[in-house]
Amino acid sequence: MASHSLHSLALCFLFLSHGCFSQLLEQQQQQLRWHELRGAQQHRLRAKTDCQIQRINALEPDHRIEAEAGLTEIWDQNNNEELQCAGVAAVRHQIQPRGLLLPSYTNVPQIYYVIQGRGIQGTVISGCAETFESVSQTGGGREGGQRPRDRHQKIRQIRQGDVIALPAGVAHWAYNNGETPLVFVSLLDLANDANQLDLNFRKIYLAGNPLRRPQGGGRHEQEQHRRHSQAENAGNVFSGFDDQTLADIFNVDTETARRLQGQDDRRGNIVRVEREFGVISPQYQGEEEEREREERRRGNNGTTNGLEETLCTFRLKENIGDPSKADVYNPRGGRVSTLNSQNLPVLGWVRLSAERGVLYRDGLMAPLWNINAHSIIYILQGSGRLQIVGNSDNSAFDNHVREGQLIVVPQNFAVIKKASDQGLEWISFKTNGNAMTSQLAGRLSAIRNIPEEVLMNSYDISRDEARSLKYNREEVTVFGPGSRSQREREA
Amino acid sequence: MASHSLHSLALCFLFLSHGCFSQLLEQQQQQLRWHELRGAQQHRLRAKTDCQIQRINALEPDHRIEAEAGLTEIWDQNNNEELQCAGVAAVRHQIQPRGLLLPSYTNVPQIYYVIQGRGIQGTVISGCAETFESVSQTGGGREGGQRPRDRHQKIRQIRQGDVIALPAGVAHWAYNNGETPLVFVSLLDLANDANQLDLNFRKIYLAGNPLRRPQGGGRHEQEQHRRHSQAENAGNVFSGFDDQTLADIFNVDTETARRLQGQDDRRGNIVRVEREFGVISPQYQGEEEEREREERRRGNNGTTNGLEETLCTFRLKENIGDPSKADVYNPRGGRVSTLNSQNLPVLGWVRLSAERGVLYRDGLMAPLWNINAHSIIYILQGSGRLQIVGNSDNSAFDNHVREGQLIVVPQNFAVIKKASDQGLEWISFKTNGNAMTSQLAGRLSAIRNIPEEVLMNSYDISRDEARSLKYNREEVTVFGPGSRSQREREA
Amino acid sequence: MASHSLHSLALCFLFLSHGCFSQLLEQQQQQLRWHELRGAQQHRLRAKTDCQIQRINALEPDHRIEAEAGLTEIWDQNNNEELQCAGVAAVRHQIQPRGLLLPSYTNVPQIYYVIQGRGIQGTVISGCAETFESVSQTGGGREGGQRPRDRHQKIRQIRQGDVIALPAGVAHWAYNNGETPLVFVSLLDLANDANQLDLNFRKIYLAGNPLRRPQGGGRHEQEQHRRHSQAENAGNVFSGFDDQTLADIFNVDTETARRLQGQDDRRGNIVRVEREFGVISPQYQGEEEEREREERRRGNNGTTNGLEETLCTFRLKENIGDPSKADVYNPRGGRVSTLNSQNLPVLGWVRLSAERGVLYRDGLMAPLWNINAHSIIYILQGSGRLQIVGNSDNSAFDNHVREGQLIVVPQNFAVIKKASDQGLEWISFKTNGNAMTSQLAGRLSAIRNIPEEVLMNSYDISRDEARSLKYNREEVTVFGPGSRSQREREA
Repeated sequence: MASHSLHSLALCFLFLSHGCFSQLLEQQQQQLRWHELRGAQQHRLRAKTDCQIQRINALEPDHRIEAEAGLTEIWDQNNNEELQCAGVAAVRHQIQPRGLLLPSYTNVPQIYYVIQGRGIQGTVISGCAETFESVSQTGGGREGGQRPRDRHQKIRQIRQGDVIALPAGVAHWAYNNGETPLVFVSLLDLANDANQLDLNFRKIYLAGNPLRRPQGGGRHEQEQHRRHSQAENAGNVFSGFDDQTLADIFNVDTETARRLQGQDDRRGNIVRVEREFGVISPQYQGEEEEREREERRRGNNGTTNGLEETLCTFRLKENIGDPSKADVYNPRGGRVSTLNSQNLPVLGWVRLSAERGVLYRDGLMAPLWNINAHSIIYILQGSGRLQIVGNSDNSAFDNHVREGQLIVVPQNFAVIKKASDQGLEWISFKTNGNAMTSQLAGRLSAIRNIPEEVLMNSYDISRDEARSLKYNREEVTVFGPGSRSQREREA
Repeated sequence: MASHSLHSLALCFLFLSHGCFSQLLEQQQQQLRWHELRGAQQHRLRAKTDCQIQRINALEPDHRIEAEAGLTEIWDQNNNEELQCAGVAAVRHQIQPRGLLLPSYTNVPQIYYVIQGRGIQGTVISGCAETFESVSQTGGGREGGQRPRDRHQKIRQIRQGDVIALPAGVAHWAYNNGETPLVFVSLLDLANDANQLDLNFRKIYLAGNPLRRPQGGGRHEQEQHRRHSQAENAGNVFSGFDDQTLADIFNVDTETARRLQGQDDRRGNIVRVEREFGVISPQYQGEEEEREREERRRGNNGTTNGLEETLCTFRLKENIGDPSKADVYNPRGGRVSTLNSQNLPVLGWVRLSAERGVLYRDGLMAPLWNINAHSIIYILQGSGRLQIVGNSDNSAFDNHVREGQLIVVPQNFAVIKKASDQGLEWISFKTNGNAMTSQLAGRLSAIRNIPEEVLMNSYDISRDEARSLKYNREEVTVFGPGSRSQREREA
Repeated sequence: MASHSLHSLALCFLFLSHGCFSQLLEQQQQQLRWHELRGAQQHRLRAKTDCQIQRINALEPDHRIEAEAGLTEIWDQNNNEELQCAGVAAVRHQIQPRGLLLPSYTNVPQIYYVIQGRGIQGTVISGCAETFESVSQTGGGREGGQRPRDRHQKIRQIRQGDVIALPAGVAHWAYNNGETPLVFVSLLDLANDANQLDLNFRKIYLAGNPLRRPQGGGRHEQEQHRRHSQAENAGNVFSGFDDQTLADIFNVDTETARRLQGQDDRRGNIVRVEREFGVISPQYQGEEEEREREERRRGNNGTTNGLEETLCTFRLKENIGDPSKADVYNPRGGRVSTLNSQNLPVLGWVRLSAERGVLYRDGLMAPLWNINAHSIIYILQGSGRLQIVGNSDNSAFDNHVREGQLIVVPQNFAVIKKASDQGLEWISFKTNGNAMTSQLAGRLSAIRNIPEEVLMNSYDISRDEARSLKYNREEVTVFGPGSRSQREREA
């Protein structure tokens, strides 16, 4: 390995390809990932789905559900065979300032990406300690000091660029405490083995009346109701119990019990906070320290002793937006950052990972196939051209893509991304805690690893042509515009 | 954690809620379970099944098969969509005194609970040593001392309250050496990953003619035959081979080979022991020592070194009936005991666990949902009311349940149990070696872990009401009758 | 254990059964396998398939695809319900001398057995170092010394008797550098959890035009094309991209890019090497050292520290043909060799294992069932009679089998193999990295492990008869012809 890296380093000087040093890191990282693959193998277990995909589409949301203080859009696996094949669905939430997404849980694990804005998020894990205290702004006066502080579980600041993992069956809520809409897109992994039910997702709210929309009445409401019901499979868990039982259970009066059921609530699943809201959480920078603590706890080699690895202490989020954390950087092409079980261990548990990519004007991603995962790409910004090829002679997808679209690249299908002159940014969710790719071109490619004479005979080409295939692209993963197309551009 | 427990302890004194101390244990245990969840994750892998369940039923057995010395009743997954969704079936065996359940194996793992009686049970694991010797009562005289003792594998005493795990493909038999019927109920986990066949169970006997019923002849027999065949999918493995080959294989005469096939056997799958039966096993109390030995072997922290963890030495059973071993105890409400991979490691392997619950008169179980498992409840004694709610606004089940009924609570559905004035006892089988629940009320509940102000805005209630939701029930898991209903009762 | 082995040893002397000593090893090995079962449990995770199998057939290939320098035959899961139940397909490649099987990858793991001939094989794993150098025979002169040697990944010599594991999504190629055809049969494990697509296999070539056959034109070619397309689901990944993009990506001229797509290539998936082919690899004996190095790295106890266990250094092949490595040997009956995750760790990762068996004239394999795997038997040589029994009273298969046939034995079905007077040789592929069997007769059998009195009452036989069932066959796994049939033969 060491001598090999030196060799690559030598090539860096030799060919003066830009971005070469940063790409050496990628090579080492890829090797590390193979290291982990044996563990990752345990994480590839999914339900089998039907995959007779000849043609892939760039998908817009199928459903749109308005609430008092926000909007929920759903990519529905029942409407799109690409999603059905990958065994996933997706949701985009837009929460207005002072909007609260009601507490809910689902039967499948999720992975979120915060597209814009900031807010706070709470994950409610039964059995973990109530380690946070909030000083209620008015409580002290009212209560006379007996219980001046509210105790609850850890809550997290979230902001643009954050990736958040949510295990199946764990309740969570989110609140927009910023000035601009808080928008996030989340992948629901229906085929994940954590889901013991069928390949539908079920969202179960702990509050509100998620099936009702804000403005009352009429045929439109009923239609909305029906569509939401079908799309989100959502209900308030308390509404199915009778209020007498709930009053008994909580030891409260029947009126309060009825409030749990939210029968007359017309606000929908995202409500405007009217009552005082003083929940606070440590400032964002504090989390860096938390992460360092976690890493210290794990020791230097990243291994865990199993004892401290509890969901209560698991870090559930990590920011992937910061350019300085890129795993691959090519000043001529762009950059790629990866989150997997190695830098966010909970991803090994939910068996999902994420990749954030930025291509500059005319930049290219090396053609590659996903070895052990489906890849679900959400376009964050800009536009570009994607080509996806499976095992037929025709491409499954060859089209321009733009902000807000979702594209499924099934396992083993090969994909090329090319930015337009506006550049292209995306987040990819992958259905494996340690997703692996195999590149078809560039310094880490399959072609590079095959003996010249196998290439010569496979493609019926000369030794010189074989060498040009192997060595004309010294970059890794992210390519600058080809010198050929540069020539054309200049011509 | 320590300070949190102290805090809870303080609350115990403050609110004088009964059963408080014992419930602190539950809190710590729940945290321990989250500890294990990462490992448990590997145990959640199942086939996906169809789950369009709107209405759940309390199930009685679908088939009833009489044999010479006992009765077999079957809950058939093909007849009940609840069972189909959970990917399970269930069987209840009633073995009369001196009855022998013939050796058989199935393609799916099972977990048994002994409802009443006592007996001995043998598990036949290829490759493990024949570590037990039986002195045959008459053998010494007959054989002239050449082989005075019979060697065979370990056998186990079983008695009421025992839970027994049976890996897939492992043969076993059971004998009632008591004075009363030996009755046990077993869950067959069809969707378990250990089953590489389809979602049916197949029972393969090593003896007898399980498809024939005791009394000869007529249409009734044929019908019985057909029903058993459909219900148990059962055959004698030797009957499909020809007797010449069997004679060759065993190096015995053809007549003995034919006995293996049991062609003329009319006794069914549970036979009356007519020939001498001197099989003995160590006394029951001896097993406690075995367990302690096992625990010593594993060291103090419960971890295993992998080398001694063989199926040959695995403890396959544990008694869950003893009130002193309860994990949660509330003198006003009842008690709950749990068996999972932490106190019976083989359960991590078969990916099943069990919970035994006892509710006193009018006692309540906190509403909760199963995070990572289906729960299949078998009512052992008494009666009560169960409410089960999924993701629609209506309850999936709201009914009285009684002894002998089986109720499926699908993953993520919420359930409330309330005892009648006779009390309620049950055994729950769960489709995960480390089944986790999330409670909706009480000291370990989701509601308790959510900040007051999120509750206030979610339910549109005052701070005082939010606090009453969070703090009016200090109990955990098992609740006494609400003071409200007590008041009503007194009124 | 020690005393038990001594006991067995004593029996060896007592009964003078041939092959006794070598069989003691098998007993210990079986116990070791149970040791590993807990780990193996993680390897049993598969998609559920439909298994309403009443009758099993000995299968010949369904498709036959000719190429310039070889022949590909396919057992198609869509044509055979046995294969569908087991979730597998199979392929046999025959490569002529100087034939090159073009580089390709599939969406499922494979396990190969080399039936005859020898060659070299390359596995292309993204991210692993290019650790091999080839001196190109003519390159030095042409290039003027700048890059005299070709660098590429490790390549392997393969020869008759080798078993090779191929993880899903990993590209590979093979070349026949011998004088005789190189023939191998490979099992494709469609239901393996590494496959996140549906239960079809997709083969994706990196070169050529696999759908075209050598000789041009006409209706026959179209038919061939269609059949291959259906059977192999095969395409050239580059053909779906446009040549301009490929030229950009590889930074080569459009003509070379077009060669990647192989549009006018009529050679099929196995091509004749016309251009110089100087790829060399270390001599075969060198691999023994490699293996020893690997074992040293792992320490004495066979455990791995996880850090060095990377796919880059994984040993992917092992020879199973050498009689001296047999796990069970009975000079009267034959021998059996097993490869599983314990002697070829990558098999734990791909969750497949293999067994090679040789029965001498009239030899028998003990009746047994596969506890945790399907077994797919390919007959290598000779002929014999197989009996397979499931959970019905009739046999699912009772027929003569011969060279080149494939027979599926589903999980938990019992099987007896008996050689004809030509003897019988086979390779079995099993769908578990640690496949376990349970034998019905012989020294390690279920019958032997059951107390005499259970047998007496189960079969309604005398104590003497029970003892003859338990002790008349002291052999393990491989039996010589029964003394009964010997008597008959002599008569």
